[in-house]
Amino acid sequence: MKLPPHGSNPQHLLKTLNIKAEPNEQIIDFSVNINPLGMPKSLAENWGRMFQLISDYPDPTLEDLTEAISKKEALPKERILIGNGAAQLIFLMAQKLAGKNILLVEPTFSEYRTACEAFNCHVSSYQLAEEDGWKIDADICLKHLEGMHAVFICHPNNPTGVTYNREVLLSIIEHCERKGIFVILDEAFYDFCFENCSLLHISQTYHYLIILRSFTKMFSIAGLRLGFLAGNEKLVQELKVMQPHWSVNALAEAVGRLCLKEDEHVQKTKEFITKERTRVISKLHSLGYVTSSSEVNYYLLRTKEKQDLRPLMLFLIEKGIITRHTENFRGLDGHYLRLTVKQKDANNKLLSSLESWLKKC
Amino acid sequence: MKLPPHGSNPQHLLKTLNIKAEPNEQIIDFSVNINPLGMPKSLAENWGRMFQLISDYPDPTLEDLTEAISKKEALPKERILIGNGAAQLIFLMAQKLAGKNILLVEPTFSEYRTACEAFNCHVSSYQLAEEDGWKIDADICLKHLEGMHAVFICHPNNPTGVTYNREVLLSIIEHCERKGIFVILDEAFYDFCFENCSLLHISQTYHYLIILRSFTKMFSIAGLRLGFLAGNEKLVQELKVMQPHWSVNALAEAVGRLCLKEDEHVQKTKEFITKERTRVISKLHSLGYVTSSSEVNYYLLRTKEKQDLRPLMLFLIEKGIITRHTENFRGLDGHYLRLTVKQKDANNKLLSSLESWLKKC
Repeated sequence: MKLPPHGSNPQHLLKTLNIKAEPNEQIIDFSVNINPLGMPKSLAENWGRMFQLISDYPDPTLEDLTEAISKKEALPKERILIGNGAAQLIFLMAQKLAGKNILLVEPTFSEYRTACEAFNCHVSSYQLAEEDGWKIDADICLKHLEGMHAVFICHPNNPTGVTYNREVLLSIIEHCERKGIFVILDEAFYDFCFENCSLLHISQTYHYLIILRSFTKMFSIAGLRLGFLAGNEKLVQELKVMQPHWSVNALAEAVGRLCLKEDEHVQKTKEFITKERTRVISKLHSLGYVTSSSEVNYYLLRTKEKQDLRPLMLFLIEKGIITRHTENFRGLDGHYLRLTVKQKDANNKLLSSLESWLKKC
Repeated sequence: MKLPPHGSNPQHLLKTLNIKAEPNEQIIDFSVNINPLGMPKSLAENWGRMFQLISDYPDPTLEDLTEAISKKEALPKERILIGNGAAQLIFLMAQKLAGKNILLVEPTFSEYRTACEAFNCHVSSYQLAEEDGWKIDADICLKHLEGMHAVFICHPNNPTGVTYNREVLLSIIEHCERKGIFVILDEAFYDFCFENCSLLHISQTYHYLIILRSFTKMFSIAGLRLGFLAGNEKLVQELKVMQPHWSVNALAEAVGRLCLKEDEHVQKTKEFITKERTRVISKLHSLGYVTSSSEVNYYLLRTKEKQDLRPLMLFLIEKGIITRHTENFRGLDGHYLRLTVKQKDANNKLLSSLESWLKKC
C-alpha cells in the first residue's frame, strides 16, 4: 500500500491505512515539521483586523513584504521572489530547468524530484550514507555534478536534520559558479539551527546560487503558504513571468510582515529545540535506538537491527502517535521514521511508547 | 506612462500616476469587479475558529472541497481541479499549451495573453466590435479558429459584461470538439448574471471543453484566492502533475466550503445587481454616455465622441473615484472606462461626478 508522500494531514494517512480516524485532538502528529511552540502571539492578536484583507485582491507586486524582506536580509529587492509557499518556487525553478539534467543530494525533500520530473528533467542522485553521518563529500559531489545543469541541496537537510560543513558547501558553490550550474540551496529549516548555517548573506556574490526560504515552519503558518527565493536579478525576472498573478494571498502577505518582526520567537524556538532535542535523543540512545545527528526540529530514527518500520509506525498509531514514514525517501526505504521535536509532554509520550515497542519485540 | 495591468489595488494606481495617496476609506474603488454586497455573513461568523487552520498544512488532495463542488455542480470529482485562484488554472492551461497557437476573443481579460505569452504560445486575436454589440459571430470565429490549438472565451466577457448567444457558443464548441481544439470557457462572472448562462452542466459531453470558475468575485474573497476548473479526466491529471503541492491555502479551502452553501447570498446579489445596473445605466444614457450591454456587475463606459478617457479617469480620481482604465484591452485603447456596479450611494456619487465632467467639458 502506497502511503501519502508527505507528513502532516494525519487523517489522510489513517484513511490510506484504512484505520478508523480519531478526532484530531487525540492524535499527536510527529510527522509535521512545524514549530512546537506554535505561532508568534502577534498573529492571534491581529487575526480580527485581518478579516478585512480577504475581500480585496492581494497586492500583485507584494511591494511591502518584498521591502520588509529586503531590509531584514540586506538583499536588493530585485533579487527577491516571494511565492505561494516554497513549493511554488521549487516548481518555478523546475519549469525554468525543464528538460535539463538535475542532481539531487538524497535522501531529501521529495518535492524536488516531483517538480523536476513534472517538467521532464533528467534527475540523478548523489546518495548520502548513514555511515558518513549523512554528510556531503565535496569530491564525490563534484563528480556527480558532471554534465548537470542544476543541483538541489536541502540545508539543513530534510529528513536527516544534518547540516553540512560550510567549506564543503562553498567548494560546491564555487565549482558550480565556474561551470554555470545552478545550486538551489533550500534553507527551509535554517532558522531552527542554533548555529547560523545560512548562506543567504553571501548569495549576492554568486550568479548561480539560489536560496530558498520558508515562513511556514518556524512561524507555524503552513496553512497560509509563504516562502521566498533569493537569486540573480535576471532569473528572478524570468521566474516572475511564469508565476501566476496574485500567487501570494493577502493574509500570507500581512502575516509574513508580522513574522519578520518576531526575532524573539525565533530565538526562543531555537533554544527550546536545541535543549529538547538533546534530551529526547539522549533518551532514545539510552533505549537503544539510533538517530541522525540533527541540528534542527526533526530527526531520523531507526532500530539497531534496521528493520522495516511500518510495524512500529502502526504500533505508534495505536498509541495516538503519527510519524513520518520514509518509504518514499531514496536510501531510507521505510527503515527509518522521521520524528519531529514537540513539546515536552508529547515527546515523553513518544519516548514511553518507543520503550514499550522494544519490550514488545 | 504605463498604468497597472489590472483593476483593484487603487493605491498602486495612484502611485503610478504620481498622485498623493488618499486613505483607502476616502476612495471608492470602481475598478475592482467584486460583489458590492460583500462576503456572506457566515465568513465573519466563522473567522475566529478559522485561526487554527493556518498552523497546519492544507490538505493537498483538497478532498472535502472537491467533494462539495462535485455534489453542488453534479460533476465527477475526477473532472475537477481546484486552484490558487482561477489565475493559477489559466497559467496551468497555458503551460499545457506551451508553444501552441492560441486564439483570444478580444477585448478580454488580459491574463490569457500574459499566461500564453509566458509559455511561448502564438497568440492571435478575434477582435469583437462595439457595432456588433461586442458579440461573437460564429462564422467569423470559426474562420479565426483555423490552425488553432485552443481558444479562450470569457463568458460573460470581461470587460464588456456581455453574454453570448448559447447557440453561437455551442456551435463553436461543437466545431472545436470535432477539430480537437480546446475551448477554455472562463465563467468567472457567470453567477452575477440573472439568467443562467453557464455551460458547466453540459461540459461532460465534451472532451475539449474546459470551464473555469472563480469563488473570489461573487463571495468577495479575492484576497484568499480560489477557483476551479472542470475538464476531462486526463487533462485534469496532467495539470495536477504541474501544479505545486499545497497550492490552495487552508483558509481558502474552508471558506470555499462555506461559500458553496450560500445560494441565498448569490440570489440576493443577482437581484441587486440587475436592478441597480439597470438604474445606473439608464441614468448614464440619459446623461449622454454610451455603455456596453452588460448582464453582470461591471460595464464599459465611453462618451459619444469616443475620446481618450485618461482625463476623465484623472478627474474622477480627484473626486475619490477609481475606475479601470482600458489602455491594455485590445480594441479599447483607453477610449472606455470599465466601471463596477457598487452600492447605491457610491453609484450616485459616480453619476453626479460623471455629470459634472460633461458640464466641465
